[in-house]
Amino acid sequence: MTDTLDTLPTPCLILDRAVLRRNVRRMTDRLKPAGLQLRPHLKTAKSVDVGRLATAAFDGRITVSTLAEAKYFAGGGFKDILYGVGIVPSKLPAVSALRRQGVNLRVVTDNMTVAKAIADAAKGGDDFSVFIEIDSGGGRAGLPYPDLSHLVPIARVLTGGANVELAGVMTHGGHSYHENTPDGIARVAEQERQAVVAAATQLRDAGIPCPIVSAGSTPTAMHARSFEGLTEMRPGVFVFNDLDQAGIGSCGDGDIALSVMASVIGHYPHRNQLLIDAGALALSKDISAQEFMPKAGYGFIKDAPVKDLAVIACSQEHGFVQADAPLPYDKLPIGSRVRVWPNHACITAAAYDRYHVVDSEESDGRTVVATYDRINGW
Amino acid sequence: MTDTLDTLPTPCLILDRAVLRRNVRRMTDRLKPAGLQLRPHLKTAKSVDVGRLATAAFDGRITVSTLAEAKYFAGGGFKDILYGVGIVPSKLPAVSALRRQGVNLRVVTDNMTVAKAIADAAKGGDDFSVFIEIDSGGGRAGLPYPDLSHLVPIARVLTGGANVELAGVMTHGGHSYHENTPDGIARVAEQERQAVVAAATQLRDAGIPCPIVSAGSTPTAMHARSFEGLTEMRPGVFVFNDLDQAGIGSCGDGDIALSVMASVIGHYPHRNQLLIDAGALALSKDISAQEFMPKAGYGFIKDAPVKDLAVIACSQEHGFVQADAPLPYDKLPIGSRVRVWPNHACITAAAYDRYHVVDSEESDGRTVVATYDRINGW
Repeated sequence: MTDTLDTLPTPCLILDRAVLRRNVRRMTDRLKPAGLQLRPHLKTAKSVDVGRLATAAFDGRITVSTLAEAKYFAGGGFKDILYGVGIVPSKLPAVSALRRQGVNLRVVTDNMTVAKAIADAAKGGDDFSVFIEIDSGGGRAGLPYPDLSHLVPIARVLTGGANVELAGVMTHGGHSYHENTPDGIARVAEQERQAVVAAATQLRDAGIPCPIVSAGSTPTAMHARSFEGLTEMRPGVFVFNDLDQAGIGSCGDGDIALSVMASVIGHYPHRNQLLIDAGALALSKDISAQEFMPKAGYGFIKDAPVKDLAVIACSQEHGFVQADAPLPYDKLPIGSRVRVWPNHACITAAAYDRYHVVDSEESDGRTVVATYDRINGW
Repeated sequence: MTDTLDTLPTPCLILDRAVLRRNVRRMTDRLKPAGLQLRPHLKTAKSVDVGRLATAAFDGRITVSTLAEAKYFAGGGFKDILYGVGIVPSKLPAVSALRRQGVNLRVVTDNMTVAKAIADAAKGGDDFSVFIEIDSGGGRAGLPYPDLSHLVPIARVLTGGANVELAGVMTHGGHSYHENTPDGIARVAEQERQAVVAAATQLRDAGIPCPIVSAGSTPTAMHARSFEGLTEMRPGVFVFNDLDQAGIGSCGDGDIALSVMASVIGHYPHRNQLLIDAGALALSKDISAQEFMPKAGYGFIKDAPVKDLAVIACSQEHGFVQADAPLPYDKLPIGSRVRVWPNHACITAAAYDRYHVVDSEESDGRTVVATYDRINGW
């Protein structure tokens, strides 16, 4: 029997393939004409099926956030994989194991100790491909531009011996998530570009090849006004979008491909609330979208019969749904189903082992047309 | 080769069995002398091994929060299982399927529509065991005590036909998590007790048997001053404890059995921070403990070389670690391992498919002596 939105057990994760495809097309149309490669950050989707869709117009390079993802996507045929979280020496054997299978699993560092460990490990015959990370203002990982004093020394340690390729430089302007105007995001995009291009220039001036110059987040990929000097972008959440991206203007309301379907399990008119069977685990406790969308709670209800109907609190398996206006309980009877837009899709999706895929263009949007698996854990 | 804390890949979830056993003993010593059964809420542990330890001194009844847990624990031999989230009619066939296998999977409602659906479903020959939920002041699910006007009518609908047993009444004083003194928690425990005992009395006065009178959360189970009229308690997080429980005084610092082990992946002295490879997914974005422990962030570092070393921010796979004092980077070199106390153990654990079990009493506390699996999802 084919599942539909009426038969799937709740809570579950629904992916609208039509919206996903539009989102991929929009990003492709941004990057392809600029001559950039897309190296999508598949930490969001963690799905080979989504990865194939996202890379269809490009050369197939991807970014991952865990070694479990690296193995999974390698198994799915991906050959150029950037593991985008700073590598530590204890993880190098797992990297080598995949590289020996013909997968160009590239690693990242910003640290001299790690660079030495990689160079040492390479002496044993294993080869490595390494990015040096630059902090373009987000204040997470990376050499803190404009202080790039460690850049060339690290690059020289990496490339001084045998078997280590400097793949290039990369940055992630995560502070773009805290801007909610095109101008503000474009400013962060320009910080990304300037920092990482400056790093590439410094390496090349020192005679060290720097083939890949990589930047990106979904907001900066959408709003950058120049990609000059960059060779690839690494947006992630653009495939699905979420309330957080809608709040900052990376996408419109109709561009959110992901939702959590839940059942109404209780009516509480004495406090103008109802409960659904999607709580902290099914939605996540990520409330990033509240920065610019204070009423989003843990997620707005899609196609709600009343304005700003949102999950305003969560316990582990209960979501508390409320609105400013009186709830129309007759339109949300016990057992009826609602779909919750994710506050932050990357974190919400991580509770699920699969996507139930519907398609609002090719079919009725309610019949499950495919199931995409996901790789969770580490 | 036996894994140790030095060889496990990071991030991973570490469970100290010695602390777990002490925590179970403490709860057993609270409830057993009072003549109560313990029906542990295994939504926290989601582990058959932990469930067996927790119920060893009792008759084996348990609580779960998903049908996936119900199936998993049934497979592990548990025979009396309360599915503690309000049931909806679409889930009754799955309940019946387990009951036909000899598992007394009991369901919960506070709603007349659902009661009618259960009674209708039972006409087909399937039997059900149902709790009626009472809201003792937490404001989540349940008939809102003292207004129990719907209680007897719902009970009559349930028990009016064939094949439905009213198992009893249950409540969960979740507002105990927002009290941080023994007196405050004891007050909530007394609200739980009064509400659910009043409901049982009302049913019995109407001639309806009410065998089980069930209350509980970890704080109220630890601090209740009377259990009179109750027959069982349903604490959950007591098996592990966490910073949230330590903050409200349900446990001491030495009573936290669970930690996330992570590797130091970067040093950022220009902002007095370091990064670890445990972020929003490995720790969760739950910050409940911050209510009474504002410096807890997403979790304190265990045995830290500097006061109040905590994960103060998270992105998906990066944890930002900081303290008020200058970080002693020489004591936290790149690649070294730290253990993070969970802010809220139930949510943190949900990202993992297993516990790596160590034992700080029977062995050195660093060798993995067992692996316990977990059931995630729905």
